[in-house]
Amino acid sequence: MAFSRYLIILALVTGCILPSGVQALWPIPTTLETGMTTLKISPTFYFDVQIEGPPSDLRDAVAQSQHYLENDKLGRLVVGRGSNDTSALATARTLSKLTLSLASGVAAEPISSEAVKPLGTRSEEYALIIPADGSAATLTANSTLGLYRGLTTFNQLFYYYGGVTYTLLAPISIKDTPAYPFRGLGLDTSRNYYPVCDILRTLDAMSWVKINTFHWHITDSQSFPLEVAQYPELSINGAYSPQEVYTASDVQYIVQYAAARGIDVMMEIDTPGHTAIIAATYPEYVACSDASPWADFANEPPAGQLRFALPEVMNFTASLLTNVAKALPSHYFSTGGDELNTNCYANDYLTEQQLNRTGMTLNGALDTFTQTTHGALIAQGKTPVVWEEMVLDWNITLSNETIVMIWISSADAAAVAGRGFRIIHAPSNYFYLDCGAGEWLGDDPTGNSWCDPFKTWSKAYTFDPLANLTEAQYELVLGGEQILWSEQSGPQNVDPIVWPRAAASAEIFWSGKQPTGAALNVTEALPRLHDVRYRMVQRGINAIPLQPQWCALRPDACDIYA
Amino acid sequence: MAFSRYLIILALVTGCILPSGVQALWPIPTTLETGMTTLKISPTFYFDVQIEGPPSDLRDAVAQSQHYLENDKLGRLVVGRGSNDTSALATARTLSKLTLSLASGVAAEPISSEAVKPLGTRSEEYALIIPADGSAATLTANSTLGLYRGLTTFNQLFYYYGGVTYTLLAPISIKDTPAYPFRGLGLDTSRNYYPVCDILRTLDAMSWVKINTFHWHITDSQSFPLEVAQYPELSINGAYSPQEVYTASDVQYIVQYAAARGIDVMMEIDTPGHTAIIAATYPEYVACSDASPWADFANEPPAGQLRFALPEVMNFTASLLTNVAKALPSHYFSTGGDELNTNCYANDYLTEQQLNRTGMTLNGALDTFTQTTHGALIAQGKTPVVWEEMVLDWNITLSNETIVMIWISSADAAAVAGRGFRIIHAPSNYFYLDCGAGEWLGDDPTGNSWCDPFKTWSKAYTFDPLANLTEAQYELVLGGEQILWSEQSGPQNVDPIVWPRAAASAEIFWSGKQPTGAALNVTEALPRLHDVRYRMVQRGINAIPLQPQWCALRPDACDIYA
Repeated sequence: MAFSRYLIILALVTGCILPSGVQALWPIPTTLETGMTTLKISPTFYFDVQIEGPPSDLRDAVAQSQHYLENDKLGRLVVGRGSNDTSALATARTLSKLTLSLASGVAAEPISSEAVKPLGTRSEEYALIIPADGSAATLTANSTLGLYRGLTTFNQLFYYYGGVTYTLLAPISIKDTPAYPFRGLGLDTSRNYYPVCDILRTLDAMSWVKINTFHWHITDSQSFPLEVAQYPELSINGAYSPQEVYTASDVQYIVQYAAARGIDVMMEIDTPGHTAIIAATYPEYVACSDASPWADFANEPPAGQLRFALPEVMNFTASLLTNVAKALPSHYFSTGGDELNTNCYANDYLTEQQLNRTGMTLNGALDTFTQTTHGALIAQGKTPVVWEEMVLDWNITLSNETIVMIWISSADAAAVAGRGFRIIHAPSNYFYLDCGAGEWLGDDPTGNSWCDPFKTWSKAYTFDPLANLTEAQYELVLGGEQILWSEQSGPQNVDPIVWPRAAASAEIFWSGKQPTGAALNVTEALPRLHDVRYRMVQRGINAIPLQPQWCALRPDACDIYA
Repeated sequence: MAFSRYLIILALVTGCILPSGVQALWPIPTTLETGMTTLKISPTFYFDVQIEGPPSDLRDAVAQSQHYLENDKLGRLVVGRGSNDTSALATARTLSKLTLSLASGVAAEPISSEAVKPLGTRSEEYALIIPADGSAATLTANSTLGLYRGLTTFNQLFYYYGGVTYTLLAPISIKDTPAYPFRGLGLDTSRNYYPVCDILRTLDAMSWVKINTFHWHITDSQSFPLEVAQYPELSINGAYSPQEVYTASDVQYIVQYAAARGIDVMMEIDTPGHTAIIAATYPEYVACSDASPWADFANEPPAGQLRFALPEVMNFTASLLTNVAKALPSHYFSTGGDELNTNCYANDYLTEQQLNRTGMTLNGALDTFTQTTHGALIAQGKTPVVWEEMVLDWNITLSNETIVMIWISSADAAAVAGRGFRIIHAPSNYFYLDCGAGEWLGDDPTGNSWCDPFKTWSKAYTFDPLANLTEAQYELVLGGEQILWSEQSGPQNVDPIVWPRAAASAEIFWSGKQPTGAALNVTEALPRLHDVRYRMVQRGINAIPLQPQWCALRPDACDIYA
């Protein structure tokens, strides 16, 4: 058996790189040993689930894996797309089954239960062994969630040529576990609406690269597409149309669909800013509603923010958030807190009156508001998540458990960690998928994107989760996510603007480093990311080409210094 | 009757803008008078073609127009999407037919014949009258091509709400004719391949905004997807795969599909640079083939350029171009000529030998090569089209008829016009659709797009076709086009990266100015462009949202200084 560990050492010694297509896994596993034997999938191949009373979502996952195995039909990304493999295939041994089992004594819970446990308590690791001699492959884990992760790896191992599904890499031995517990993708469904089917398709693609959190920025100033049973007028008046609503059953369907794919849905109802549309239902709760010029009162039109100083607004918001949050299985709920504009309250009579009456400052009132809404969430067993300004600009009193999302700049992570909060990296200078599409405001033909330039996959991939942190702060880093803000996006472009770019952070936070222990490296990664992209296309995702196909078939030939 | 000419004057006087949705036409007609009467399409509405022996493509176009009228079902882009129109609809008169006729004495030629006539000899103008009283609407023109243009206008006039298709603008009177004869869209199908169906869909969208030329950059250094009967190995060896080929019948199908939609196909086989892939078939014809480092020899990998100094290469190229061109109905054929890299020949023995033998300079040889290839095309009745370097960098002897495309910078138009050549504007600083997507070369994580930033629709829309030209040179401007180069594009993102942006140049070169005579203006245009985009989405094009839907429903509310 010639394991690739040997090949890797050889590669390091000789300075050469591994043959194209040798490792097409994404994210790259923690440990990975591969050989050079061709092994093909038997026509009678099956998944042997050695688990008593397998949960239905595990059975569904196995059926999905079988479907991908039969239908991916991805040709290797080399010139000829595998036509040179025919002689090896003629004499290759066949693999007849993959046995799935849980560690002894582990009871099989549904994937969807495992997927929504608190961060740090989920078991995502798995071990996958594929012998070269055709004997059964084995996938073992401590949880159904781990088995699910292993199945996504298994599917990435196989190519197709001339009616045969095969790998050139047997024997294969993988032990894999994520570097960080939180690996997300953010989507804004307020600026423009995404039909449920587009969200489901996105969840599928997320699952393929082991992303485990869907950060759903569901509402904003522009529209309120979320149906809330206790406050039905919010979506009746706030959605773009009756067709552009996520009903309670839509949300439950999405949450369940996600969980069955190992994905927790962390919803965000951004407050107290980004709430102008609430004025369509509760005008008395919103200050500077549609005030003009909007740019004096908000970062985007329309202006309007919750009058957070008023007790009735605090109570309404706490009730709204808890009513939404308690219907969700996730332990996490984001209350937002970004881009609060104080001009909005400067001449707001009701706010001024309340502050005068109570002797509070605006900042103090925001503190009370946040404690009220967070207190209500915590009482429901939820962990609040906020944007960085709550800590860095407003110094709000937050529970130690609160998770803080970095967005303005990657440079802000250290300051938040310095305050002892756990952090999620979503820095605009690396991870914002919408940057670089030009100014979207009207009447500004020469304007650029505020976060210009476009963040390529490779720029995102150079992100260091631990930069500027002390070793003692490393444990505060839960992970990170790329986000699509939707001022200029919708179902029409969600696939190409997100994929395969969002796989960059998925690997940073799952793999952390290469199996050799070396740091992640864009040159090593690019051929594998092409592979991810081409496989996504085979599965119906409109993932964008990263390069001319000529380059995709010739690793490194299109490097800038090649 | 309250015509909008009056309203426009009113608007100018009061500084207010016309009601939302009043004018949703794109490109905006030369003259346009509208009223304020609601008129709905009768359930028995029909197109009355008063033409003897109507060509089959005109009949198809009428059927298509009928289909759009029945199926667009576009709600007006106002809050409520037309729900406020119900009372007006209840009492509205109905329109029962549109009569199509040609000017007296005009024989009906197929649209597809009219569409491929020489520039300046096509008749695209039409007149469309829709009375307010429900009497028959009329569409008249001097050609079937003009009728076709009028049908695309007719379809843009109608909205849908609650089962009714209607306009609020009757009576409507339009006389319309293009400002420029050439209005194109360029697509590179070499860096990445586009299946035929994606090209057809793109042609449909082009026709809706009256674009009349598909500039098909079909081959380049990375792949040669064009099947050429006389040189079959070019695509056998040069296409990415046997499935990624445009067969001769594919090309004919595309050309015919385009022509029936009023679109001429101007093909480009870029020479003598951008030809590396020809080495896969004729290695002896290509210098510096796959030379390393590629960046010393080419703007993109792989390196490789035709050995244009060799007589056999001249003859091969002339034969190749004419064999391709003569199968196309278009009068125009582009031989390219951009980005020629002289390093490629500096140490090329065969080229040096030939130059020594003949006493020619490299520039002189390029002159001979171009005269040979162009001479062959001219002999076939074709007008050669070249990129600007042929004139500005190489001072090549070109026929006066040659059309020169500007791409490096809009500033170069004046110099080319100064040489007396007719020009097509395709400046990268306004019209390149691929800019701003980041560096695509590998191993360059901090690199940006060479033509960063992204060219928004509004940036493109501010392009002035006559900038820096003398009045005497105005007639040299044939028109212009936006182009998608495909290093980072493919069928996965062609819709959202092209649409609705490419409508910007379509209007610049059709309308030239507003019906009032005022210059085109992004603020006036944006609501109409939203309309184009939403209608495209209704017809199955994944056109990108330009703004949050909140803005699309509220003209000017999201202007930067609103």
